[in-house]
Amino acid sequence: VGRSQYDAISNLVDLQREGGIPLQEQLLAFFRDSIGKGWLRAGSRLPSSRRLAERLGISRTTVVEAYDRLACEGYVESRPRAGVFVAPRLHGGSRPFPGKAAAGGRRVHHGAAMRTLPDRGPSFASEHDLPLAPGIPAIDRFPWNVWSQLSVKLCRTAASRLVSWGDPRGELPLREAIAEYLGVTRGIGCSPEQIIVASGSQPLVETFTRAIAHAGDRVWFEEPGDPASRGVLRAMGLETVPVPVDDKGIDVEAGRLAAANARFAIVAPSHHYPLGFSMSLTRRKALLDWAEQHEAWIVENEIDADYRFVPGERPTLHSLDTAGRVIYLGSFNKALGPGLRIGYAVLPERLLGALRLTAQTVSVANQLLLARFWSSGHLAAHLRELREVHARRRAVLLAALRTDAGALLDTAPLPEAGLRLPVTLPPEVSDLEVASACPAAGIKVGRPFSSCYLSGRGACGMTIGFASTPEEQIGPAVAKLAAVIRASEAVPRRLLA
Amino acid sequence: VGRSQYDAISNLVDLQREGGIPLQEQLLAFFRDSIGKGWLRAGSRLPSSRRLAERLGISRTTVVEAYDRLACEGYVESRPRAGVFVAPRLHGGSRPFPGKAAAGGRRVHHGAAMRTLPDRGPSFASEHDLPLAPGIPAIDRFPWNVWSQLSVKLCRTAASRLVSWGDPRGELPLREAIAEYLGVTRGIGCSPEQIIVASGSQPLVETFTRAIAHAGDRVWFEEPGDPASRGVLRAMGLETVPVPVDDKGIDVEAGRLAAANARFAIVAPSHHYPLGFSMSLTRRKALLDWAEQHEAWIVENEIDADYRFVPGERPTLHSLDTAGRVIYLGSFNKALGPGLRIGYAVLPERLLGALRLTAQTVSVANQLLLARFWSSGHLAAHLRELREVHARRRAVLLAALRTDAGALLDTAPLPEAGLRLPVTLPPEVSDLEVASACPAAGIKVGRPFSSCYLSGRGACGMTIGFASTPEEQIGPAVAKLAAVIRASEAVPRRLLA
Repeated sequence: VGRSQYDAISNLVDLQREGGIPLQEQLLAFFRDSIGKGWLRAGSRLPSSRRLAERLGISRTTVVEAYDRLACEGYVESRPRAGVFVAPRLHGGSRPFPGKAAAGGRRVHHGAAMRTLPDRGPSFASEHDLPLAPGIPAIDRFPWNVWSQLSVKLCRTAASRLVSWGDPRGELPLREAIAEYLGVTRGIGCSPEQIIVASGSQPLVETFTRAIAHAGDRVWFEEPGDPASRGVLRAMGLETVPVPVDDKGIDVEAGRLAAANARFAIVAPSHHYPLGFSMSLTRRKALLDWAEQHEAWIVENEIDADYRFVPGERPTLHSLDTAGRVIYLGSFNKALGPGLRIGYAVLPERLLGALRLTAQTVSVANQLLLARFWSSGHLAAHLRELREVHARRRAVLLAALRTDAGALLDTAPLPEAGLRLPVTLPPEVSDLEVASACPAAGIKVGRPFSSCYLSGRGACGMTIGFASTPEEQIGPAVAKLAAVIRASEAVPRRLLA
Repeated sequence: VGRSQYDAISNLVDLQREGGIPLQEQLLAFFRDSIGKGWLRAGSRLPSSRRLAERLGISRTTVVEAYDRLACEGYVESRPRAGVFVAPRLHGGSRPFPGKAAAGGRRVHHGAAMRTLPDRGPSFASEHDLPLAPGIPAIDRFPWNVWSQLSVKLCRTAASRLVSWGDPRGELPLREAIAEYLGVTRGIGCSPEQIIVASGSQPLVETFTRAIAHAGDRVWFEEPGDPASRGVLRAMGLETVPVPVDDKGIDVEAGRLAAANARFAIVAPSHHYPLGFSMSLTRRKALLDWAEQHEAWIVENEIDADYRFVPGERPTLHSLDTAGRVIYLGSFNKALGPGLRIGYAVLPERLLGALRLTAQTVSVANQLLLARFWSSGHLAAHLRELREVHARRRAVLLAALRTDAGALLDTAPLPEAGLRLPVTLPPEVSDLEVASACPAAGIKVGRPFSSCYLSGRGACGMTIGFASTPEEQIGPAVAKLAAVIRASEAVPRRLLA
């Protein structure tokens, strides 16, 4: 390495003495970046710490410590009496060191920023962390201590199994835990063999849909319903037939008239998305009758059914099903948090042979951790706590909506279950406009109802979340929501009185 | 609760005094099961500890402690001066307590068994833990201490972000880490914005395929190639056109003749599956020319390219691509272990707008953990260690194959990269028979070559893994493999001499 490259390095290091990032961190970021991008070739010698410190006008200790840290991180190797060299690349290859001009135009990665996660600015997904974001449980109550302790124990005991290939269906201890969980929380009896685990409802729906339907088949889809879920089915080549939903759930007779020979129906009987209705027992039986008669399937989507706020429980379609036509879809997203990415499906035994399972989508370690979280009683305790937390937050939200926004929206009818309250707006108001204006006001609401109809016409409103918002933040958030609605261009004058 | 139920409980508890499961654990398992399945209704009183201990002929302390643990786990509540009661169900509902006959016929879950994971019998997936299983890195060297410490730190600092909704593309710190990782290990320059993260190659392939192709489109698929990967494309309605592979990689001219207007080609240039060839520079350029000319795409599948065993590196298609037609597919399965379930794709910028991303498939916590594992230098250090471990194991395998099985199989040509060695068998031998007989002999080999041809005809052999098998186990495992081949019905007599 000639003197010219020494100079190049010294010239390229553009230390900022203001801005609060320590000089050593800036130096580290420069070298990580230069080595990572191949500008500093494997085997090339770094400037001596003395020379670089002189050139940059900084303390030599700062450079020495930075070199030590780079060695510790594997970027460089220190050879006694020879100097500090860029470590052999994991692979060969290199790229030319760019001229000063090229480097000057490039935003330099600050490794330090990369490592202090909580300091990052708002991310793509951060809207979900705003007050009133629907469908997220009280993740502020997540039992990190227990979770972390169980994780450490698991790392100690299960060792290489945790990173080896797992069972494509899901790890057996987790499937056993889910079977027990469904018994305790939903009164559902099933064997672990009927359960498949995946990282969310999309891979689950894709997996069983491939077993029960072909491109071109028709599917009953709730109108209104979740457009994201409809998109998954349509991307698989299925024709989603909109079947109207009223306060008793999906209109089975309308479905029969529209597409009696549909391959399956996908419904959310405990807590319809987005309107929140619960399917009546009569409708449940009618739907099961249709499925049995036409050898069709029913997908019972209960991913937002972990929490009920009304005494008594309606029997699940799964428990009423005597013909083995129901696929039950569940998730731990609402029990623990959507970032966990663990869902499951309970399949009729006759379907098991038809599944084409490839690789599992949930890490083995997370599966076994959740299984232990259940089997050691912590999940039940957590759900018990959240049931109370959610009920309190729900009551606070209801009161705030009625007090501060009662003239602008309507909260009735209240859903029996789920982590969101549907509210309707006056028909003159654009729910799309209101929902999209919320994040700028510092709140987040659910998808506008108008976007949930295939026909594009229907109720006007949205769902409001209560579960992830601490009680003291709910009132101010509702005041913001009311302000957003009032600021809406289309809001009728009578409401501004 | 009447006396009859007390008696029923006492009669149903079927304690086994032999078999080594502590009586208290058995009692706990019984109550968890009975409460979980709804046989013991919410609110019903458990027998007093004194009475139950008497009836069962066990120490009262055993019962008291079991009740305490049930209370701690949330199954029961202890009310002072009233007794111990089954806790309110998370939901309402209950089911009848079965008669003794019914319960007798039911296999009782032993909660204890569920919680001691390492004691479980062989699982569905355990074949992958056998010696010679291909494509798995040295997971026995996984740095559990560091991983577990970073995990604990992460739980402390990032809190509820870890279970909230993440970025559908993947957490930014991980995408930044991957961009840097690709720079260090492959000399690939890309921005975090071009990267999407998912739990494996299947969800990644599905995601970008939806953006670049439609059902009915044709795709160049290596012949031979991975049937699982072909299955994913075919399930999406694509027509996979087999394009022959020779020792220089995919035959681009043959591809042009068969389907010049294919929508994309999916290739593994560093390490062809299963034959192990590396694509020549000429072929790489020819493939890129075809893609540019026809506005087609190239999927560069490099999920088994983290380790190279030959000096020098061929440039990736991604780095040769000037037209922005290459989608690079990578994974941490080979760097850390397949059970981690973290893969990624690097997309041309022009494709970013066309992606329909729904929910992320990797947990937020695992993503941030891996990002820290990289940014704190541990991943580079781990790869450095594994490079040496793998090189040693590869050499031991090669020597053993030549010494103990040289007459039965052929190891040349050696792949430049990857965690599997292809071996060919004499054409008279059924590779299918040999591969399927291996697990019974206590070893596991890769998919038989004959199953990798769409035409069903081609090379006879399979891949042998070396990376996950400790050196001392390799020799005995190869001896077992030789015995399996010798025992094969179709093996020619000349080889048995």
